[in-house]
Amino acid sequence: MYDYKYLEKFIRSLFESAGCSKDSALQVSKILLAAELRGIPSHGVIRIKDYYHHCKIGRINTNPHVKIVHDSPGTAVVDGDNAIGVVPAVYSMNLAIEKAKKCGTGWVATKNSNHFGIAGFYAMMALEHDMIGISLTNANPTVAPTFSVERLLGTNPIAVAIPALKQPPFVADLATTPVARGKLTVAQKKGEGIPVGWAQDKDGNPTEDAGIIEKGGAMLPLGGDRLHGSHKGYCLGAIVDILSAVLSGANFGPWVPPSVAFLPLLDETVGEGTGHFFGAIRIDGFMKTEEFKARMDHWIETMRNSKTVKGQPHVLIPGDPERENEKRIMKSGISIIPAVAKDLKAIADATGLEFEIK
Amino acid sequence: MYDYKYLEKFIRSLFESAGCSKDSALQVSKILLAAELRGIPSHGVIRIKDYYHHCKIGRINTNPHVKIVHDSPGTAVVDGDNAIGVVPAVYSMNLAIEKAKKCGTGWVATKNSNHFGIAGFYAMMALEHDMIGISLTNANPTVAPTFSVERLLGTNPIAVAIPALKQPPFVADLATTPVARGKLTVAQKKGEGIPVGWAQDKDGNPTEDAGIIEKGGAMLPLGGDRLHGSHKGYCLGAIVDILSAVLSGANFGPWVPPSVAFLPLLDETVGEGTGHFFGAIRIDGFMKTEEFKARMDHWIETMRNSKTVKGQPHVLIPGDPERENEKRIMKSGISIIPAVAKDLKAIADATGLEFEIK
Repeated sequence: MYDYKYLEKFIRSLFESAGCSKDSALQVSKILLAAELRGIPSHGVIRIKDYYHHCKIGRINTNPHVKIVHDSPGTAVVDGDNAIGVVPAVYSMNLAIEKAKKCGTGWVATKNSNHFGIAGFYAMMALEHDMIGISLTNANPTVAPTFSVERLLGTNPIAVAIPALKQPPFVADLATTPVARGKLTVAQKKGEGIPVGWAQDKDGNPTEDAGIIEKGGAMLPLGGDRLHGSHKGYCLGAIVDILSAVLSGANFGPWVPPSVAFLPLLDETVGEGTGHFFGAIRIDGFMKTEEFKARMDHWIETMRNSKTVKGQPHVLIPGDPERENEKRIMKSGISIIPAVAKDLKAIADATGLEFEIK
Repeated sequence: MYDYKYLEKFIRSLFESAGCSKDSALQVSKILLAAELRGIPSHGVIRIKDYYHHCKIGRINTNPHVKIVHDSPGTAVVDGDNAIGVVPAVYSMNLAIEKAKKCGTGWVATKNSNHFGIAGFYAMMALEHDMIGISLTNANPTVAPTFSVERLLGTNPIAVAIPALKQPPFVADLATTPVARGKLTVAQKKGEGIPVGWAQDKDGNPTEDAGIIEKGGAMLPLGGDRLHGSHKGYCLGAIVDILSAVLSGANFGPWVPPSVAFLPLLDETVGEGTGHFFGAIRIDGFMKTEEFKARMDHWIETMRNSKTVKGQPHVLIPGDPERENEKRIMKSGISIIPAVAKDLKAIADATGLEFEIK
């Protein structure tokens, strides 16, 4: 088990050694460890190896000049200058919040960025300003639109954070697929099958093969098949792609660059880097903040206290499981799987940093 | 088969006779016939009976004063004064568009409204202004959140319309459930079962019984079960409910009033009427409109021309099926099922209007 502070110090030192500024390195540590604490290790320290490698080979720019390239009172496009994703993402979300202070809402589309970690992190930045936060990103293509056999969309997540009064905030952070890509990898490593409705083979047939992506298959949009509304999941993934990338000038659809080091960049591009989309909505642009928050408490309590299916203690509010993880993991420490710890040790050794395998 | 103009004249005359203004009656005819043309008869002339009945008994206000009750430069709350839903919805969407002209985007939450027809209609109003349009509404509760056995959310649709250049616009309009409520009714009337993943029984077990809602069952959120991501559909339906109703001051969750005449209004309320949420996003708040539209064409062509599953002619773009229906039905005429035509004839006879059963 690793202490939060221990990992934070390691990540900061590592990315500073890779050429990132102190601020950027701090942001990287925050976003990766937020994922660990919230129980989403697929977006946690496992990403360090690729992020670091991309910094070292110049595939990510460690000295970026992130800037606004187009704007109106309530909107902007930000050029991330090929920075590590968290840097333009934090910049863009802060800009959306500033714009919301003047206009009631603020919306920022970001291009020329990279993998930005967990989407919910940015949506939650709005909460302390008594705003609703929204965060979207496209991702490298693993998903086939309904009726297609090609991988043309990413798992394109939608995150929305909404403040409440006595209740903790509502924080939804969902890939527009039945499950995250990582769940297939885990099943594959365990030699297990996957449920029908998660993926299809190269001809578009249902499959239970967890390794199907490597055989030309694809993940399916939320809904699974047409009968269960996969066309709706396809719509949602498409909307995320269009707002994040068509509207910002980033690469969209099959041209989104891979975020992992073992896949090369594509020869063809239709824009710059990966795209995100951020929104901030001032509660008091609509009603008195306290009144809204009390109404949110009522909404949350109604759902949470409703009668459950046998065996379920209560109905969950989006954000509940992650908050429970956070409490638990902050106390117990962060567990890192041996293969990842080994990778981190190797990187530490090569850079003269200390990292202990625990 | 009915001619568009014939039905338009009938609907206008009928709602004028019920006390609606000429403008309101025209809007009612437009929204109901748009649904018929787009191939969504569940939101078409079948609704006339309930709308008309509600006008006659005063459950809907035929002489409303729709007004802004709170605003900021880019946001507003509109009080629909218990009007027939299309009236405050058109007012609110136009207001969002006006606000977007100044701020880059405009967002309006609407309370004290009623059933507003197809959500896509309002989203599409933004297109001619070179804006992206968004339209959400809550609806009377038929859906159980994941792990709950209570019906606490509606089928809460999300509609998004995005303009393109040579290609027709992208128009997504989707309930946040695997299927619309109407599909269960149709299966029930045919004596058929429904696929597992659409609904659950009163204890939360999977069911194939199309009549399960009347037996205490519930529709499931998009995703169906937890394994296939129903918690994501629950999140999406929740976000629609919160933006439409918690933020506007309308009734949310289980308190959304029923839109059908055979169900009485609830004794308890937590706000006023039904709630909607509208957004307009100026394309040129982000990039030159022509450039964006050309990029949208590229996006659309990429998806549409991708390799399909055997037997499917091409991958559909959201809005394609509705456009094909519109072309076909405008030419062939609008078909009305005998039971609905009979209802309309009875209303016509009682009000001294002409309506022919064809």
